[in-house]
Amino acid sequence: MHAVSQYQEFLSEYLQSQLEVKEPRNLYEPIHYILGLGGKRIRPVLTLMSAEIFGVSYRKALSAALAVEVFHNFSLVHDDIMDDAPLRRGSVTVHEKWDTNTAILSGDAMLILAYQYFENYKPAIFRKLAKLFSRTALQVCEGQQMDVDFEVRQDVTILEYLKMIEYKTAVLVAAAMKMGAIVAKSPKKNGNLIYDFGLNLGLAFQLQDDYLDAFGDPKTFGKQVGGDIIENKKTYLYLKAMEFAGEADKQKLADLFSTQLENNSSKITQAKAIFVNSGAATATQKAIEEYTFKAFETLEKMSIGDKEKQILKSFGENLMGRKV
Amino acid sequence: MHAVSQYQEFLSEYLQSQLEVKEPRNLYEPIHYILGLGGKRIRPVLTLMSAEIFGVSYRKALSAALAVEVFHNFSLVHDDIMDDAPLRRGSVTVHEKWDTNTAILSGDAMLILAYQYFENYKPAIFRKLAKLFSRTALQVCEGQQMDVDFEVRQDVTILEYLKMIEYKTAVLVAAAMKMGAIVAKSPKKNGNLIYDFGLNLGLAFQLQDDYLDAFGDPKTFGKQVGGDIIENKKTYLYLKAMEFAGEADKQKLADLFSTQLENNSSKITQAKAIFVNSGAATATQKAIEEYTFKAFETLEKMSIGDKEKQILKSFGENLMGRKV
Repeated sequence: MHAVSQYQEFLSEYLQSQLEVKEPRNLYEPIHYILGLGGKRIRPVLTLMSAEIFGVSYRKALSAALAVEVFHNFSLVHDDIMDDAPLRRGSVTVHEKWDTNTAILSGDAMLILAYQYFENYKPAIFRKLAKLFSRTALQVCEGQQMDVDFEVRQDVTILEYLKMIEYKTAVLVAAAMKMGAIVAKSPKKNGNLIYDFGLNLGLAFQLQDDYLDAFGDPKTFGKQVGGDIIENKKTYLYLKAMEFAGEADKQKLADLFSTQLENNSSKITQAKAIFVNSGAATATQKAIEEYTFKAFETLEKMSIGDKEKQILKSFGENLMGRKV
Repeated sequence: MHAVSQYQEFLSEYLQSQLEVKEPRNLYEPIHYILGLGGKRIRPVLTLMSAEIFGVSYRKALSAALAVEVFHNFSLVHDDIMDDAPLRRGSVTVHEKWDTNTAILSGDAMLILAYQYFENYKPAIFRKLAKLFSRTALQVCEGQQMDVDFEVRQDVTILEYLKMIEYKTAVLVAAAMKMGAIVAKSPKKNGNLIYDFGLNLGLAFQLQDDYLDAFGDPKTFGKQVGGDIIENKKTYLYLKAMEFAGEADKQKLADLFSTQLENNSSKITQAKAIFVNSGAATATQKAIEEYTFKAFETLEKMSIGDKEKQILKSFGENLMGRKV
């Protein structure tokens, strides 16, 4: 087993070795650009780590890990068009640096390239990986569509929201880990359990992202604190507050979330007060703990050594940034 | 073996059986819409026909054929965004009927769905189909990028143009036919030969499309005659005319192709006169014949019966609309 930073290193090296300059340049340069912007590469690192947890060298999982990373970046390129986002990882987005047509076509090519990385595996493994990948990729599209649909709906339920973040975020984390098990030819039961581990950890991670967006430390959060409130995003915090708060606060929150202001600091302060007073903040923390706990529970059922279980648990604890 | 119209029927029935109403509707409705617009479905028909040529029932090829058709429609949805096209097959395009974001995301889902149809095959066949499909899909993206790049270039060569139409159009026809051979487990040599047959027929077909765009019969062509001239598209006719014509005509053609006019009939008449007088029209007809001949030559090398060879030859002759 290696440290997370080592897996990141292995992946970067492999990525570099795969990026050949190809024609037409206008198709491939945006692909190299977005993949070169870096990021934490959590998903492919999980694939490498999972392969070693289940007893094979990370090297065997490099192609599958890269497929996951290329797919994730494909989804970022197309999502950024849809959100009209100017920046990604602190740099100009592909559709801003080039244009929308280039971002569409280069994104399409990345989705295909992701499938091609699986060709480094023999037929039986190839089929399992590609099948899991297709199902996951389609769910990510469905999650993105739900997210778009929710923007104009006022009656989104907590269950619908959880399904949306499961599809948009958690299934790819889950699939990334299961791919490690598939490459390692681990028994099916282990593959399903590591999938559940990743799914619950992914849900906990996204809920924590919701929480930190409002209550995080501006020094360490990395994004603008209050960003979701400014953009009127109906996160778990908002939906729980609308469930718990009294009529007056519900009305106030609904009004706050139907405005676009020049100065947002008062809006953020008021929304956060309702999140706290209604109990929504506490409920969100509780949900994060529950999903993290669920993830750790599945570890117990896995037929791997205690050392390996502890590695996965530590990773989860580090990802969640605190002991639970 | 069946008639083309029967294969179209089989495919339509199978397509209908696959289109279940799924959530989120905003993702799946555009997919059902574009697939329901019809079209001649030449590519998937070729997959079914090819499977029977190589000795298995068309039924075994239905999933691969549908993958080809869904992919083709994916490329239309995304190309229509890029070209800002209002109409497709006489109906409103997806990005016009819904919006660009919907067309991007539904298109992405179609690309993934195409891969999923291969899951109906066992590992070895699945891997062969998906591998051929990925290579082909990436080439189609590359061809589309070349087409975009060529719009602003004045120095496109005939060879570059041929590579562009090979990637953008011919490789999918070729792959569609090879998939029939793969499904039928025909020897590799047959698969490669039917690929070459499809590739050359696809090139001949696209060159004929270029030719008919200028010289076709308005009653039967289906599209506006002269459309490429109006849009200043550098087709084979244009590039050959720029190669063959004298300085005066070259300058005149270059001038014509740098204007956007209100009344195009004079522009079309003048361009066509240069196409004819320079010998470009004759050269295009000759190229069409050569590629068609090349396609028929590969038939001779195939280890299939004379009856099957004759069926493929008749199909090619019908597609080209005349005896060569």
